[in-house]
Amino acid sequence: VIGVDWGTSSFRAYRMTEAGQIIARASASSGILQVKAGEFPNALCAAVGDWLADGETKILLSGMVGSRQGWVEAPYLPSPADPAAIGAALIRIPFDDADILLIPGLSDRDEAGTPEVMRGEETQIIGALNAIDLSGLVCLPGSHSKWARVTDGRIASFRTYFSGEAFAALRTGTILGRMMDDAPPDDAVFARGVARSADGAHLLHQLFGVRSLALFGELGTRQTASYLSGLLIGHEVRAALQADGTVHLIGAAPLCALYADAIAICGGIARVIDEDAAARGLARIGRVAPWAA
Amino acid sequence: VIGVDWGTSSFRAYRMTEAGQIIARASASSGILQVKAGEFPNALCAAVGDWLADGETKILLSGMVGSRQGWVEAPYLPSPADPAAIGAALIRIPFDDADILLIPGLSDRDEAGTPEVMRGEETQIIGALNAIDLSGLVCLPGSHSKWARVTDGRIASFRTYFSGEAFAALRTGTILGRMMDDAPPDDAVFARGVARSADGAHLLHQLFGVRSLALFGELGTRQTASYLSGLLIGHEVRAALQADGTVHLIGAAPLCALYADAIAICGGIARVIDEDAAARGLARIGRVAPWAA
Repeated sequence: VIGVDWGTSSFRAYRMTEAGQIIARASASSGILQVKAGEFPNALCAAVGDWLADGETKILLSGMVGSRQGWVEAPYLPSPADPAAIGAALIRIPFDDADILLIPGLSDRDEAGTPEVMRGEETQIIGALNAIDLSGLVCLPGSHSKWARVTDGRIASFRTYFSGEAFAALRTGTILGRMMDDAPPDDAVFARGVARSADGAHLLHQLFGVRSLALFGELGTRQTASYLSGLLIGHEVRAALQADGTVHLIGAAPLCALYADAIAICGGIARVIDEDAAARGLARIGRVAPWAA
Repeated sequence: VIGVDWGTSSFRAYRMTEAGQIIARASASSGILQVKAGEFPNALCAAVGDWLADGETKILLSGMVGSRQGWVEAPYLPSPADPAAIGAALIRIPFDDADILLIPGLSDRDEAGTPEVMRGEETQIIGALNAIDLSGLVCLPGSHSKWARVTDGRIASFRTYFSGEAFAALRTGTILGRMMDDAPPDDAVFARGVARSADGAHLLHQLFGVRSLALFGELGTRQTASYLSGLLIGHEVRAALQADGTVHLIGAAPLCALYADAIAICGGIARVIDEDAAARGLARIGRVAPWAA
């Protein structure tokens, strides 16, 4: 079986045994924003055509490839959802050279009734079920960080935080960015930003403090970005952390390391899950998928 | 006496009697960012040269003209400060054709020890002292909104909120802006955003909701900007509102109207002060200024 984690700006494919052992990997720069409408079959063949020629017949896709800007728009499956429910909701995509199934994203509603959505993260969470003993709080940091509550092997509910994209916009588009060098992350200054997030003042006030600290020389231009990052991630972690205190992190190692630091400062315990969660999730859902005979 | 409110992007001059009656007004597009170093005397003469030729000899400046990017950098005067303290801290600027005095900005420290600064707003607040009966909470909305506590005719303390610049950056630099039309403000949708700010979820989570509501068709592209504005201003007002509930607003009429709506929704009482507060503040400080004989 071939599993593909096809996101907005990335394409990662895995050739796997039925049991989920990874035989080969392929990655490409053909994230869905780089692929024109109608060109998705070609983009897929360019990346995994060799494996098809070698006899593979099943392809499972997850991620933003199932969005309005992707190959086929898959309706969201409402949470709670477990691997069986996701397997029963797969969408078949007509394709000449293999049987292609698409994993739908999940939806939810927050306490205020506002919609929640994810595409791709559900597959990573399914891939982490063993690592989290089937229940726990999972965080997938990113532009739009997802925090999911997993209960008895199901994705029970989830919430999104806009911190990553807010950080980028504040850095690029405000006076705060004019005081920032492209310096490497500074752990101590990041921790200072996380600590600031706990002082009871509102984030919109604390953001101005990033400027005033720099203006008074109390924060250097090489420190400002790390401080802002700590401030935003600190707010996110404090808002999302739950009573049991343990957070399972899935994502790129450097970002997970920042979140792990922030979680520890906020009194939680972080466990970082290895980066193959997506492949394991694809294999797991693939085992319950209704493949053509 | 000539009073000038000289900001980052605006220049407003008033020719006044000693008692503060406005005889003539002048405005120019020569905000300090439009004036090159060394060109401040020329920019001033271009705007008020006629009044000097007509016999005026005293000029009082306030605003960002006293910043590092302005004509002369004036050290901040620490708050609390009253008109007499500000009058005693004026900076004389060498100039051939008149006696020029510059009003310093004010500084403060918030509860966490983070610096606070204002330049120009102190003059507007001084100009509003009569309207607020010498004590009260004053809000000057803008890119960096200022909320000042005035006690017994002194500016006792103040806090800045970054909401205006955050709104602009989120609108210009994130996926939220891609779902926004340039529609006129929608009061009902603005109120919906303000109400959302009270539901207990974190702002960083609620920001993603702006996208998901649009994605589900529960917020139209002509509504998204008003909703985001209400969400941010709602957060600011709830954080800054104090027990007595009354807020005196100084600023441009359309922005004050939005803040007045948000304050009312949040259970406060808004009083909008007329737009000549800067002129009255310049006149008030001018009366205690140490003019050359």
